[in-house]
This record gives sequence, C-alpha cells and structure tokens, in this order.
Amino acid sequence: MKIAVLGTGPVGQSVAARLDELGHEVTVGTRDVEATMARIEPDSFGRPPFAEWAGQHPGISVASVAEAAAAAELVINATNGAGSTTTLEAAGEKNLAGKVLVDIANPLDFSQGMPPSLFVSNTDSLGEQIQRRFPEVKVVKALNTMNAYLMVDPKQLAGGDHTVFVSGDDGDAKAQVTELLQSFGWSDIIDLGDITTARGTETYLPLWARIWGATQNPVFNLRVVR
Amino acid sequence: MKIAVLGTGPVGQSVAARLDELGHEVTVGTRDVEATMARIEPDSFGRPPFAEWAGQHPGISVASVAEAAAAAELVINATNGAGSTTTLEAAGEKNLAGKVLVDIANPLDFSQGMPPSLFVSNTDSLGEQIQRRFPEVKVVKALNTMNAYLMVDPKQLAGGDHTVFVSGDDGDAKAQVTELLQSFGWSDIIDLGDITTARGTETYLPLWARIWGATQNPVFNLRVVR
Repeated sequence: MKIAVLGTGPVGQSVAARLDELGHEVTVGTRDVEATMARIEPDSFGRPPFAEWAGQHPGISVASVAEAAAAAELVINATNGAGSTTTLEAAGEKNLAGKVLVDIANPLDFSQGMPPSLFVSNTDSLGEQIQRRFPEVKVVKALNTMNAYLMVDPKQLAGGDHTVFVSGDDGDAKAQVTELLQSFGWSDIIDLGDITTARGTETYLPLWARIWGATQNPVFNLRVVR
Repeated sequence: MKIAVLGTGPVGQSVAARLDELGHEVTVGTRDVEATMARIEPDSFGRPPFAEWAGQHPGISVASVAEAAAAAELVINATNGAGSTTTLEAAGEKNLAGKVLVDIANPLDFSQGMPPSLFVSNTDSLGEQIQRRFPEVKVVKALNTMNAYLMVDPKQLAGGDHTVFVSGDDGDAKAQVTELLQSFGWSDIIDLGDITTARGTETYLPLWARIWGATQNPVFNLRVVR
C-alpha cells in the first residue's frame, strides 16, 4: 500500500521504518523538505538529525506533506499534536479527502513544563477536532497510548500481551487500521466506538506520563484484563 | 483499626463490608443518618435502600460523618466526587486533622449525560482540591480506577494480576494504605508520586467509561505490563 507518514520525529520514524519493512511504499511528509534535510544538529533530545535516519532508510521517500498525501492511499498523522491541524491543512483537504487518516498525535501541552498537560481534553479531543476540520477524511485514532517503539513492535514486550485501542466513525476504516495493527503484531485491539472516544485515549496521557515517571521506563503498556 | 467510610453508595458499601470482614471496626458516615435510614425505595439504579444493606451487616455502625470521622483512626472518602468537599467539611476539619484519608472519589460530571466528563481535570484534580482544602489531612488517592467490587476483591479477576495506583504527599500514609490494599488482595501497587499524580488516575476515568461501553462488562482493570 502507498502510505504517507506525516511527521519526522521518533513516532514518524518508527512507523515509517516498520511500514517499509512490511513492504509498503512509504513516503515521509514534512512541511519543508529542504529545511528538514538540511538540519545537521541533533534535536533537543539528542537524537540524530532526520537526514541521517533517511540515509539509513533508502527505501523510504521524503516529500512535502502535500505531495506525500496526494500520492498516498492511507495517511498517518505522526506530527506533534500542537502542529497537527496546521500540518494537515498544508497537506491539503483535497489530497486527504476520502482517505483513512490514522491519527497518532496527542494534544500535549509542554508550556507548563513536565509532565505535560493537554491543550484539549475532557469534553473534546484532538481526534474530534481533526475529524470536524476534515469531514471528508476517515479519521481513526490509534496507537497514541504507548511509546513509539512499542507502537510498531508490540511483541517486544510480554509477547504482545497488551492492548491497543481504535476510535473512529467509519467501520471500514477501523477494519483497515485493525489489519494494519495486526501486521505490526497487535492481537488485543479494542474498538472503543466513534471518534468521540478519542477523549478516552487522549486523556489517558497524563496517567501514561506519571507511570513512566514512577517506573522510569517508557517501554510499558496497558493490558485491559477482563 | 477504627475506620470511617464516608458514603453510603456501592463504593462505600463494598469497602465497608470488606473492612468489616477483615476485622476492622467500621462506621459508615452519612450526612443525615435519619434520612439515610428512612429511605425505603430502591435508588435510581434499582439497588436496595441503604437500611436494608445495613441490616445485613450488623457489625457495621452508621453515624453522622462528623461522629464517624471523630472516632476513626483512618477515613475513607467513598462519596461521589461532586459532594466530596461538602461532605468532608461536614465531617469537620478538626475530626480529620492528622489522619490518613483514602480518597476514592472521582470528579465525574453527569450533567451532559453518559459517558460522564470531569468537573476538574488536566491541570488540577479532586485529590489535590481536597488536600489543599484540608492541609492537615494526609490524602492518599487510591482505588478510583476500577469497579467497586474489584476494589476490595482484586483476586476475583485473573487471580489479582492487575494494577492499582497510589498518589499522595505523605510517604508513611501511602505505606499504610499500601498495607490496606495488600489486605484486600492487591499485589501490583504502583506509587505514582505526590498528590498531583491524582490528575493521572482521575483523567483515566473517561477511558475507563469507554472501555466499559466497548466491553459491556464493568469488571475489568488495567495491568501495567512492563
């Protein structure tokens, strides 16, 4: 499948690399290709610049978000939450229309320091904001409840015996995303319901951040024991 | 131990019955003893009136919240979140001072229908509000992330192989609550940190409600797989 991964951070890199490994035709979309490829400094977390990662993944293309979205059959929003709407607008409503958008972003607000709070929560969610702004897109919220490395390789932890959630208004889109998740190694996939249920998974992030703080290890996930 | 359980709903009843069974001297506190005992109708969920439950538990006393708190060594807030502060004020600051308060309440707002939203969240929490209002009390948030029946008998599900969280500023108080949780059957107890971490467990409730909606079974809990 032709897949556009919007976002060049750790989530975008993990997801793109895994999709490439699984044989998909992957393009990473970024708002300014030239600027992204020209960065030579490590980022603020000390991770190597994107161009270095891209050089190690010759099978993955890099393009503007609009070009990536236009060519794709399925689009993945792996941007940071604060920039998601702007990036999707740059990708272009008509390039996204009718397509499945897997929304991994979380509305994290780092302005008050760590752990982050949320810039939308409780009675609304980023997933819903995106769905309202792009009514022709089939938004499926998924994978936003764990570390980037676990998202694409759940079996590295307890043989994959833990849970991932999907939320979205379109049943066929959720079925397609569920298949994609299964190809990553997920087996316990809970369909929470329509896109308003993204409020549930997004407002879990404050607990996620504190479990990380308490356990000092980001490679954990929830299992819904039932 | 002399324990006051404030609240006569399902959480108060479950916790009081379990503590009684474990040999503690339990008093259920209610704001108006006469009115509570005089109710003969089932509640809005069809549950039998409190007096009937009390009659089946002759070892458990019923008293005003102030009397219950005054006599207790440890106090449990099992009121609904919207009424917690008022009930604790009725219990009396001096009756609570210096004591451990296990806060199980969640700031659920049912005014917009189901599933509920939260009346405080994200940058504050009910646990913190209670701690600020009663600075002499040692507030420990715990047990607010699962069904009332699971709270006091975790082993009924998967042999107890799932997780409970504690949050609070006082280490000794958390150690005491941890022991109490162990006596209920809990083995995976994660100390999230100070009382601000109650934001994490309280804002999990929107996800809890939607997992319940999706699975149609309230007897589930999270295991933090790590």
